[in-house]
Amino acid sequence: MFGEELQAAAPTPVKKPQKEDLFKVSMAGYSFYHFDIDQTLEMMQRIDVHYLCIKDFHLPYDATDDEIAAFLAKLKNKGVTGYATGPISMRTEKQVDDAFVYTQKVGVKFMVGVPSYELLPYIDKKVKEYDFTYAIHIHGPDLPLFPNAKNVWDNVKNLDPRIGMCLDIGHNARDGFDPVEDLKKYHTRVFDIHIKDVTAASKEGWTCEMGRGILDIPAFVKMLRKVKYAGACSLEYEKDMKEPLAGIAESIGYFKGVIDATK
Amino acid sequence: MFGEELQAAAPTPVKKPQKEDLFKVSMAGYSFYHFDIDQTLEMMQRIDVHYLCIKDFHLPYDATDDEIAAFLAKLKNKGVTGYATGPISMRTEKQVDDAFVYTQKVGVKFMVGVPSYELLPYIDKKVKEYDFTYAIHIHGPDLPLFPNAKNVWDNVKNLDPRIGMCLDIGHNARDGFDPVEDLKKYHTRVFDIHIKDVTAASKEGWTCEMGRGILDIPAFVKMLRKVKYAGACSLEYEKDMKEPLAGIAESIGYFKGVIDATK
Repeated sequence: MFGEELQAAAPTPVKKPQKEDLFKVSMAGYSFYHFDIDQTLEMMQRIDVHYLCIKDFHLPYDATDDEIAAFLAKLKNKGVTGYATGPISMRTEKQVDDAFVYTQKVGVKFMVGVPSYELLPYIDKKVKEYDFTYAIHIHGPDLPLFPNAKNVWDNVKNLDPRIGMCLDIGHNARDGFDPVEDLKKYHTRVFDIHIKDVTAASKEGWTCEMGRGILDIPAFVKMLRKVKYAGACSLEYEKDMKEPLAGIAESIGYFKGVIDATK
Repeated sequence: MFGEELQAAAPTPVKKPQKEDLFKVSMAGYSFYHFDIDQTLEMMQRIDVHYLCIKDFHLPYDATDDEIAAFLAKLKNKGVTGYATGPISMRTEKQVDDAFVYTQKVGVKFMVGVPSYELLPYIDKKVKEYDFTYAIHIHGPDLPLFPNAKNVWDNVKNLDPRIGMCLDIGHNARDGFDPVEDLKKYHTRVFDIHIKDVTAASKEGWTCEMGRGILDIPAFVKMLRKVKYAGACSLEYEKDMKEPLAGIAESIGYFKGVIDATK
């Protein structure tokens, strides 16, 4: 009789349909610093992520129209959307001008910038002129510029509403601030997010695979939904940068697991 | 004044301490079919997983005592515990005998087996003799033996309570049964689990990165806690087997993300 019983009817074990989130799982181009765009797109296919913030080492600031067209065709061919440019460092008005022209040529109206404080009035003018969104990257205790979300907020709150921040949750935490609380406080000026995890909430903390560090990612994902954040959550993975695929895959997997489990 | 404000005191952004789960995130040796034990342990270090079910292609059934000692020293050196042997195919009493001797030499009291139905009375005797736990691997619609959890349960429910199953959630689903419901029903005989995801709840379904398939992993993790499952959850990753690290890392990341988000 072994193994010969008729099986009872069973439920079909499938996921319930889930409401799609407003935010997008994405990649910050910087994660692929040591790889050309073909290698980058191959890794993005492997991890099934389809949004990329475009860095200059993949598409130089002085790229010709033809080079830009070829670059964008490559992305399209691999099912990837370049949703913004940057982070782009800007220390002069000329660099601001060039960054706006570059971003316009790339065909997006959104850039992540690393400006100096005194350029903000000029950027305010440019944003109005181009109708662009400008997200200032926060950099934690490593740079004297825009270390955390509060600092960006305080500096841009009276400027054009299209100027805000790329909330880097790792750097914000390394500067002693809670990314969950800060997303809640400043979400009207959060236009881009760098997701990551860090080993400590201090200058000594460094990027690690998401889930292995000190950040409360489930609480962060719940807050993304609470404030109806509708931008990119781009993994900026700064560990094992010459052999990053395993860590990137683990981190993207972790983030997707948190997303699925908190729906 | 830009950037010169004093920062207000902020909360320290750290995870709340969480109760440790009874189950362990682990690896099924089969995932590393194309790799030797050194490469396997290197990948396990990379993904921060510390429990391994030992396959014969890593430690042959006829290994000498010295070879076994060297193998176990390697595992220990990399912080990995070999928690069981198998899956081991058994079609004769001699093969059952050999598998018990092998497992005893390896120093564990737990094996995952793929026996034929008619060997069950003999295995029942051996389990009593050795005081071993014996988990029958379920194999879905591909093999005529033990396709799903219900089939194992029906065949072992009157045997020694140390005989049960390795619940392969992918194969169980491919045979049309719900792993969450079956864990609930049969948990007293579930001693090992192969975690994975599959593309369809049918014979045509195949392994994919966890989270990309049709299984409801968050519901499964919640059920693990509900039934107080205290064994291994071993990823058996059967895709890209010659280049599996990215898919393994994404799957382990996903599972850990679900674990953290459902605590």
